[in-house]
Amino acid sequence: MLEPLLDRVKPVDLDAQNRALERQKNLTKPTRALGDLEALSIRLAGVFGTERPNPQSAAVIVCAGDHAVALEGVSAYPQAVTMGMVHNFLSGGAAVNALARSVGARVTVLNAGVMGTLEDAANLINRPVRAGARNIKLEAAMTRAECEEAIELGAEVARAEIALGADFLIAGEMGIGNTTPAAAITARLLNLEARGVTGRGTGLDDTALEHKISVIETVLSRSSTVDPLEVLCEFGGLEIAAMVGVMLEGAASKKAVLLDGFIAGAAALVADRLSPHFRPYLFASHLSAEGGHEKQLEHLALEPLLRLNMRLGEGSGAVLCIPLLRGAAATLREMATFTEASVANRGE
Amino acid sequence: MLEPLLDRVKPVDLDAQNRALERQKNLTKPTRALGDLEALSIRLAGVFGTERPNPQSAAVIVCAGDHAVALEGVSAYPQAVTMGMVHNFLSGGAAVNALARSVGARVTVLNAGVMGTLEDAANLINRPVRAGARNIKLEAAMTRAECEEAIELGAEVARAEIALGADFLIAGEMGIGNTTPAAAITARLLNLEARGVTGRGTGLDDTALEHKISVIETVLSRSSTVDPLEVLCEFGGLEIAAMVGVMLEGAASKKAVLLDGFIAGAAALVADRLSPHFRPYLFASHLSAEGGHEKQLEHLALEPLLRLNMRLGEGSGAVLCIPLLRGAAATLREMATFTEASVANRGE
Repeated sequence: MLEPLLDRVKPVDLDAQNRALERQKNLTKPTRALGDLEALSIRLAGVFGTERPNPQSAAVIVCAGDHAVALEGVSAYPQAVTMGMVHNFLSGGAAVNALARSVGARVTVLNAGVMGTLEDAANLINRPVRAGARNIKLEAAMTRAECEEAIELGAEVARAEIALGADFLIAGEMGIGNTTPAAAITARLLNLEARGVTGRGTGLDDTALEHKISVIETVLSRSSTVDPLEVLCEFGGLEIAAMVGVMLEGAASKKAVLLDGFIAGAAALVADRLSPHFRPYLFASHLSAEGGHEKQLEHLALEPLLRLNMRLGEGSGAVLCIPLLRGAAATLREMATFTEASVANRGE
Repeated sequence: MLEPLLDRVKPVDLDAQNRALERQKNLTKPTRALGDLEALSIRLAGVFGTERPNPQSAAVIVCAGDHAVALEGVSAYPQAVTMGMVHNFLSGGAAVNALARSVGARVTVLNAGVMGTLEDAANLINRPVRAGARNIKLEAAMTRAECEEAIELGAEVARAEIALGADFLIAGEMGIGNTTPAAAITARLLNLEARGVTGRGTGLDDTALEHKISVIETVLSRSSTVDPLEVLCEFGGLEIAAMVGVMLEGAASKKAVLLDGFIAGAAALVADRLSPHFRPYLFASHLSAEGGHEKQLEHLALEPLLRLNMRLGEGSGAVLCIPLLRGAAATLREMATFTEASVANRGE
């Protein structure tokens, strides 16, 4: 059922990357003077298939879902905060809204499985697959059908944003307790111990952190699967599955996918395992203060642009990086060459 | 002659900072979840004197000047490139132009002392104090009068940009050879050896780097002054003096001053020594690949927002950080509080 989506993820345009490299050599600046922006701009040339990429429009899809495992005491906040924060996103009062406005990005909320009933709203896609993921300490988060439905839902919403012009796709998230499924997915896909990928989330103390680790160990002991889709079903999270769909559709549509923090990282690991061509479309944004995030980025061979000790989720760190990617593309696209500017290059 | 300018640099608004801290505690996010953005937003509250700062408009003043010391073989590029790059700035083809357009910042070029004659142009302030700084291997870069004229010139141009609405001030620069005066100023003001603050600039090889270090050692041996204004006159650079003026005027007018790379860092060290109230108005942007920059930032107790291995100057790294500061202010200004959003805070 996911094959049509996965089949659409094709390699990036290496010819365009090579043309971009040639162009970059002649731009009016010393060699490598733009540092990491240079490689970034070449990657954007590959994604957008042109040596003068012009990505501007950005869409944040905040995927929301609840987790019955939150009742196991793995979060500093009560589960009702998921619903409360969804209302906050919809009225524009959350961090991701403020940051998105400041960089001119759209925010859409996708209810992939929040507990309780949400009224329809203009910027809400209200399509809960079920009322929260099941308690992963006891059973699989989702059935295969539910998981695939959530992935397709994310892909569908991403397609709608792309139809509106989005060049940058960000999968944000809200779901009290969701660092627990993200840690389980990460531990399994990277073959790591629970302890190595478990952090304080929204602010656990030492005792609560130890408890969370033991819960995740129990979760992991329930299933030995390493198949990425099965891992997602088992340890899941409906919003994490939806994020996988957003990311895969971004790559399938040849757009730049900006990675947010730890939860998004778990979704990216799944997408990366599902498609051999996905990774070049993925751009790291910030390094989260949630420890497992660094391991995800290392595995994906991605270098974060920002190290600001953020740990909020929502897509907030990725949104902050949109101007950096726009800027990288702008240098490649708009700078004059030495010849055009009649400036002597070194040694000339 | 500089006293009126220096007297206008007053402390930032600590009451506004405290109100901002109170507000921040109640915003709909876990404590410290926005990481370094939080302290940044509080600093902006202090600079702009409100707990809801709204800095948007940004002005880059690219200060240009030549250096007779460039003839001593301290740069990978010929001196004529300064003039060539000024033309490139004026026609909008340089990196700083592309980046500034991408974040909606204005670029103005200030000719503080380029060799040769520049035709007047719309975005050029064409007021050379003299045709390049003197050869600092042999004599002082500027007389005291020339130095103060260049500082006042930078301040005047900054005032004009502020009158047009600039909230963010960036002093950029162009001047072939200017990592040499910047290294001399930095070594003297931080009491370091030449070797510790001298880098490859636009791309020197090992032999040329050793030669550059020996030139800077000779420069430093010419004068033992530690008075900041005398250090600037001795080792100077007309564009560096103009940058000091831009920065001091930014602080005097209670605007945020964004620090670019190593040359800007040398100017900031001078401004910091000249005024006890300057430093809180200064925001580090990126960490330059030019080694002495890190030492400047350490001395100024500033943490860079970006570490992208850039080393271009022009103001380019600082321009990239404008959206990060806008974003930090946006979270403080626009996020809902827990009460406003009817979201339960932790433990409630």
